[in-house]
Amino acid sequence: MQNDLDQLMQDADLEALLIFGPASHNADMVYFTDVRHISWGYLLKQRGQPAIHFHNPMEREEAVATGLATRSNNDFEIHKIIEKSGGDENRTQTELLHRIFKEYQISGRVAVYGKYAMGLGLSILRGLEEALPSVEIVGENRNGSVLMRARMSKSKEEIERIRRMGQITTSVIGDVANFLTALDVRDDLLVDREGQPVTVGDIKKKINLWLAMRGAENPIGTIFAIGRDAGIPHSAGNDADPIPIGQPIVFDLYPCEVGGGYFYDFTRTWSLGYATDELLSVYEDVLDVYQTVSSSILPNTPCSKYQDQTCDLFEAKGHPTIRSSPKTTEGYVHSLAHGLGLDVHEAPIFRSVESNKDLVTPGMVFTIEPGLYYPERGMGVRIEDTVQMRPDGQVEILVDFPKDLVLKLPRM
Amino acid sequence: MQNDLDQLMQDADLEALLIFGPASHNADMVYFTDVRHISWGYLLKQRGQPAIHFHNPMEREEAVATGLATRSNNDFEIHKIIEKSGGDENRTQTELLHRIFKEYQISGRVAVYGKYAMGLGLSILRGLEEALPSVEIVGENRNGSVLMRARMSKSKEEIERIRRMGQITTSVIGDVANFLTALDVRDDLLVDREGQPVTVGDIKKKINLWLAMRGAENPIGTIFAIGRDAGIPHSAGNDADPIPIGQPIVFDLYPCEVGGGYFYDFTRTWSLGYATDELLSVYEDVLDVYQTVSSSILPNTPCSKYQDQTCDLFEAKGHPTIRSSPKTTEGYVHSLAHGLGLDVHEAPIFRSVESNKDLVTPGMVFTIEPGLYYPERGMGVRIEDTVQMRPDGQVEILVDFPKDLVLKLPRM
Repeated sequence: MQNDLDQLMQDADLEALLIFGPASHNADMVYFTDVRHISWGYLLKQRGQPAIHFHNPMEREEAVATGLATRSNNDFEIHKIIEKSGGDENRTQTELLHRIFKEYQISGRVAVYGKYAMGLGLSILRGLEEALPSVEIVGENRNGSVLMRARMSKSKEEIERIRRMGQITTSVIGDVANFLTALDVRDDLLVDREGQPVTVGDIKKKINLWLAMRGAENPIGTIFAIGRDAGIPHSAGNDADPIPIGQPIVFDLYPCEVGGGYFYDFTRTWSLGYATDELLSVYEDVLDVYQTVSSSILPNTPCSKYQDQTCDLFEAKGHPTIRSSPKTTEGYVHSLAHGLGLDVHEAPIFRSVESNKDLVTPGMVFTIEPGLYYPERGMGVRIEDTVQMRPDGQVEILVDFPKDLVLKLPRM
Repeated sequence: MQNDLDQLMQDADLEALLIFGPASHNADMVYFTDVRHISWGYLLKQRGQPAIHFHNPMEREEAVATGLATRSNNDFEIHKIIEKSGGDENRTQTELLHRIFKEYQISGRVAVYGKYAMGLGLSILRGLEEALPSVEIVGENRNGSVLMRARMSKSKEEIERIRRMGQITTSVIGDVANFLTALDVRDDLLVDREGQPVTVGDIKKKINLWLAMRGAENPIGTIFAIGRDAGIPHSAGNDADPIPIGQPIVFDLYPCEVGGGYFYDFTRTWSLGYATDELLSVYEDVLDVYQTVSSSILPNTPCSKYQDQTCDLFEAKGHPTIRSSPKTTEGYVHSLAHGLGLDVHEAPIFRSVESNKDLVTPGMVFTIEPGLYYPERGMGVRIEDTVQMRPDGQVEILVDFPKDLVLKLPRM
């Protein structure tokens, strides 16, 4: 929570946070500004002080709408800086930040954030350190950073915004199920009224349309992966592929609020018309692990414990895991879960590695997504919901949705 | 063009380029990979060698689809690196890049690119420089960078993709004009069939829907700014505002291919039903400057010359400009134009500053967008098209669209 920031900054011996970039599709900045039509800016947060947004005068109204304290480049005589630098972008930005740091008397350790052009950012920060020897620029780990620690614990309002995205997400998932199951089948493929095969690309275009109708955005794309593709966790599926019956489809949807606000993350695995016994058996293993693990999670316990538990359970069922076989591309090959908010992947992390000290605490929002992958056998299964750890210590799925593997086809 | 890269690298004394981040909404990476469902990766381009993409094994199929040479983290024993680092993200990535640089015998000047988390990126690069003293990491200016120089000159295929986005953009602009002019008017506001005022938010939601229907995306949002808001170039307009007749509306749309591919950028200023004489006079000044400047542009001339020409013309008509009055928020307050491609704003730049040596050359795609802004008089006007400089030296608007100020309202 933003309220925790000053304490976190003190613990990390940070005097200030400096965030680069636009106020859209840029989680660290949007955390302070909300989604705004601001293409350029800096945000400076000193310990014990409110955050200040620095903007271009053309964007002054949008900056004011953030509700933050704001300053215009004109206050720092930007036209004189540009004249002096001959318009050189790097020197201009370095000098602007230099003037800002001097006016606000910044010294000591300053951590930097924001999604930004690497080359330009590096060059500005080197210039700033050179100009201000009393400033130490700190590049934190992403997941371990002070800002991510604050973002990790959500307010009620944040959780309701994520839940609202969950309602949109699951309603689009429902639309897709309704659309698929209303189609005809010919030669074991779904076909439209003219008898033409419906493709993965057709489905993905409809998904984006149905999301836009509900005021959501889909910046990272959709996984709609069939058969062997379903067996590769991040294979997104091929647009040209037709949609067969009786084969696993991993359907993973992770849209966000328009402009890059809060995300949701949700996966179902479907088999149209019927499922083979082989697939059903793998599906039941995943569902069983999903249920066992999600009902085990207790507040103030290590996240990594549940990755270990998931490996234990899958291994007991005879599946290879990345723990038993680190290079495996079969069996259980990823992490159980990840935090979710203004980024689709954020802290806490659930990896079972020494450096991971994350605990599951009330106010956290995260996925639960065990899966099994057998590309050579033409299959993959993943089941994923987004949940919160409630103040009463219960894990709550933010939006319920059926977990049926087989979608019946009345027209088959 | 990508073909120019080796020469540009040699001129800048660069041994290699290193690009960070996903293969979506990340122009420098997408320039090599096209839009792909790849959430993480590095791209290494050595001088005189083809580019190599380094990927996570879960994303191996998507990486192969780039058509580039690819390597998996597993080739570099990522599980051992993670074990050694205890899973620390920064140390893991530093060590992975260290191994990659050693295998490919990288030394000398290496420029870094990509939109990436500033803190993590900074930390990885510092670690890499420490581990490999023979490597010098270079952070170039964004517009002056080797990669931007290559991207600035478009291939025929790139121009056709931008034109296709222009067809989508203008067809949505046409849809909005048709929608607005079919509405009723009550108390000088547009109203729907139930007599309820239609709002800016309603229009923006429809725009996103109509873009999604055509397979496009709108990641940065839309400017639909009325009256005083139209007088502030980057004011996006307020969702709750109704839509009045007889007032200027600056409507600026800049969508891209799904996943963050090529953009288009287009603005019209409309007044519904009628225009006041005051607005008409300002509009005619802008249109006149648009026509004079766009018909003056010649190949192999400095971009900044046309910013100077635009200031000359507006000043001769009695308007303040950022040249005559650097802090002005009235009159002509921005740059004439900008390059456009995988970023909505990229090189060439048209600012009249000493460091700007950009020339207009064949193969360039850029906007032409003069405007006048008088927020205190409740008005702003901008006219913008996206054009290419053709091989024959002619400036060609990529997609034509009428420039009428007044949209007639048959139901008024």
